[in-house]
Amino acid sequence: MIREGSWVNAVIDTADATRTPARPDLRKMALPLGPVAVFSASNFPFAFSTAGGDTASALAAGCTVVVKGHSAHQQTSQLVYEAIQKAIKSSGVPEFTMQHITGPGNLVGKALVQHPNITAVGFTGSFSGGTALVEYSSQREVPVPVFAEMSSINPVVFFPDALEKNGAQLAQTYAGSITLGMGQFCTNPGLLLAVKSPALDAFTGVLAEEIAKVAPAKMLHTGICRSFNEKLEEVLEHKDVQLVKQSAQAPAELEAYPTLAKVSGAAFLADAALKEEVFGPFSLLVECESKAELIKVLKSLKGQLTTTLMATAEDIKANQDLLDLQTTLAGRIILNGAPTGVEVCAAMVHGGPFPSTTDPRFTSVGSSAIQRWVRPVCFQGFTEEMLPAELKSANPLNIWRTVNNQFTQAPVSA
Amino acid sequence: MIREGSWVNAVIDTADATRTPARPDLRKMALPLGPVAVFSASNFPFAFSTAGGDTASALAAGCTVVVKGHSAHQQTSQLVYEAIQKAIKSSGVPEFTMQHITGPGNLVGKALVQHPNITAVGFTGSFSGGTALVEYSSQREVPVPVFAEMSSINPVVFFPDALEKNGAQLAQTYAGSITLGMGQFCTNPGLLLAVKSPALDAFTGVLAEEIAKVAPAKMLHTGICRSFNEKLEEVLEHKDVQLVKQSAQAPAELEAYPTLAKVSGAAFLADAALKEEVFGPFSLLVECESKAELIKVLKSLKGQLTTTLMATAEDIKANQDLLDLQTTLAGRIILNGAPTGVEVCAAMVHGGPFPSTTDPRFTSVGSSAIQRWVRPVCFQGFTEEMLPAELKSANPLNIWRTVNNQFTQAPVSA
Repeated sequence: MIREGSWVNAVIDTADATRTPARPDLRKMALPLGPVAVFSASNFPFAFSTAGGDTASALAAGCTVVVKGHSAHQQTSQLVYEAIQKAIKSSGVPEFTMQHITGPGNLVGKALVQHPNITAVGFTGSFSGGTALVEYSSQREVPVPVFAEMSSINPVVFFPDALEKNGAQLAQTYAGSITLGMGQFCTNPGLLLAVKSPALDAFTGVLAEEIAKVAPAKMLHTGICRSFNEKLEEVLEHKDVQLVKQSAQAPAELEAYPTLAKVSGAAFLADAALKEEVFGPFSLLVECESKAELIKVLKSLKGQLTTTLMATAEDIKANQDLLDLQTTLAGRIILNGAPTGVEVCAAMVHGGPFPSTTDPRFTSVGSSAIQRWVRPVCFQGFTEEMLPAELKSANPLNIWRTVNNQFTQAPVSA
Repeated sequence: MIREGSWVNAVIDTADATRTPARPDLRKMALPLGPVAVFSASNFPFAFSTAGGDTASALAAGCTVVVKGHSAHQQTSQLVYEAIQKAIKSSGVPEFTMQHITGPGNLVGKALVQHPNITAVGFTGSFSGGTALVEYSSQREVPVPVFAEMSSINPVVFFPDALEKNGAQLAQTYAGSITLGMGQFCTNPGLLLAVKSPALDAFTGVLAEEIAKVAPAKMLHTGICRSFNEKLEEVLEHKDVQLVKQSAQAPAELEAYPTLAKVSGAAFLADAALKEEVFGPFSLLVECESKAELIKVLKSLKGQLTTTLMATAEDIKANQDLLDLQTTLAGRIILNGAPTGVEVCAAMVHGGPFPSTTDPRFTSVGSSAIQRWVRPVCFQGFTEEMLPAELKSANPLNIWRTVNNQFTQAPVSA
């Protein structure tokens, strides 16, 4: 699927004796960092767990992997690992290409991150979990890169003309996005922003009705559900927060209660607690008095995985400043769509400024996720026999390379 | 010089309604992180200082820059900054594209790294300086990437057949490399490794004669010279270290004393202090009893900017294991050359595993240095008018892009 050679980033500058001093032959490519520790996500027992995106990208980079199975689905993790072991045996890959450990995160996780052979760490989970891993790494004699995808409330701005023209349809789309998978997506739209207007009231009315129609459903495990209930209760008990609507059906045990609440822009600005993620089928609508207040609200937000504009061409023309501001806020900027739904492809960015991740220069989804696990190595003055295939003059792998500042698949001429 | 578009990494995956769920239009490119704090190097008052590599790469990324002038050459730094200010005025670039501050590193440097507007840090200097900046960043509410290039002893392995056939010539090359610029290069070969043999003795004899011929010369400033003298004294007082030769001419004040010393492999392995950088015209020859001991010595080393093999085709054939080991050790692997001399080009890697730098995934020299200061941003479902020029379907900038997994300069077909 990935066009061969892209992440290898083969670059060749051939020798040039006419320069002073003469330039030697320099050829660089990406090599694997080494063993990668992967902490599987609680909310994706398959796609971001034992055989998930972090593992796949680390293996693709040529790294071996040690997965710490998530305590919320240890048996699933073990089953997947056994399937991987079978694949390793039948395909003749070295036995310890991938290993699997379980146990309490604060003990096993710390020991794993601090093991001298580990060269990088991938994590998807809570802010406290991610920052703990960063701290463990910083205590090492040789600190290693920790890519942690942590938390995001994925603000969505509803622009006036869009609300006016398509309010009801937007409300239906967003009721679906807020409650998709009982809100257990990292890109769940937890924050809806707009300037007060009759069109916003109408939108809110339809959104409330749609939320009421969504039946509660079981969350992935007890821990996620308990955490959702606690945080939801905190928000709803906030003196400035007004409950708009919950599901018409009360939740059974371990089920989540789809919920919409609202708050004024001023109150939202006054309390940092309202900017924290409530992981589950919940969204907070912030009603701003003016565009100026909306800008203040956007500026008060921390780094995000995504931010969305629900806007007409008219809205965009009148609000270029808002678009520029949103671009600084997140790794993925969405126009007239829902942030839930993350395509695994080359152009995807599932990352963003802190604290959505620990390093905004990388993504954990899509083929570029591989780049977290490689380092460039330059071979100077090597003979053809010694060079790796990716860098041999004849280009036996037929990959795209940068040769003397030109992209090409052609061999290097002698 | 840089082929336009390479660091921008424009990637386009067009909408695909035939997939389930439908894939939206996704287009990503690199955008500047924001203001970058640059700490200029003491050892390169021009090439890696105020208007040096870190500043140039940050500006090329589209970031603004605040340079902390090095205390060892504050007036040079100020003069260069004034020239830059003139250029900013005459070219109509925004006034504060670049700013310059001076003062003690522990106060001004800390305040700079912890300023909320700073989004990344570039540093070249000591291990203690670099790790202090990392610590300052970790104390921020929003930690930022710190790329610090810190220390490296750049081990050179002299293989038996090469010593046998070209010993005298290698000695001449290395006497030059060790004392080039009075040893004030990050890539100065501070460690020479070989297995004992009569050919090694002959090589050492010639190297000693050549070192004796190199006249002492002034170092860049008092601090560097004082530090060199202190560390040199420490090494030469070490009970297991034997002085081989110093310059035939004694150094005057502020001049460095070109020096070669040697130690056994066993003694080198026994004391971590011998693995520290002595920044100046000094090299330590480690005489190993056997190839097995040489491997132990290589495995005991920390991460390096460079490592070099002085080897014939015969040597390489017999020592593939050593080559593999050296490749894990550094960012640049040199065959039959000297590590001093760093070409500014696309294939260069001036970086390496910790503690040579804080992040082995980047380089501070060459066009890839730009990648330290950018983050990918994905625009989903954007209209042509809203897309940046780099991502518009027509490709008005005529850059190379990855479109639906193919490298191309062609426009995106509708």
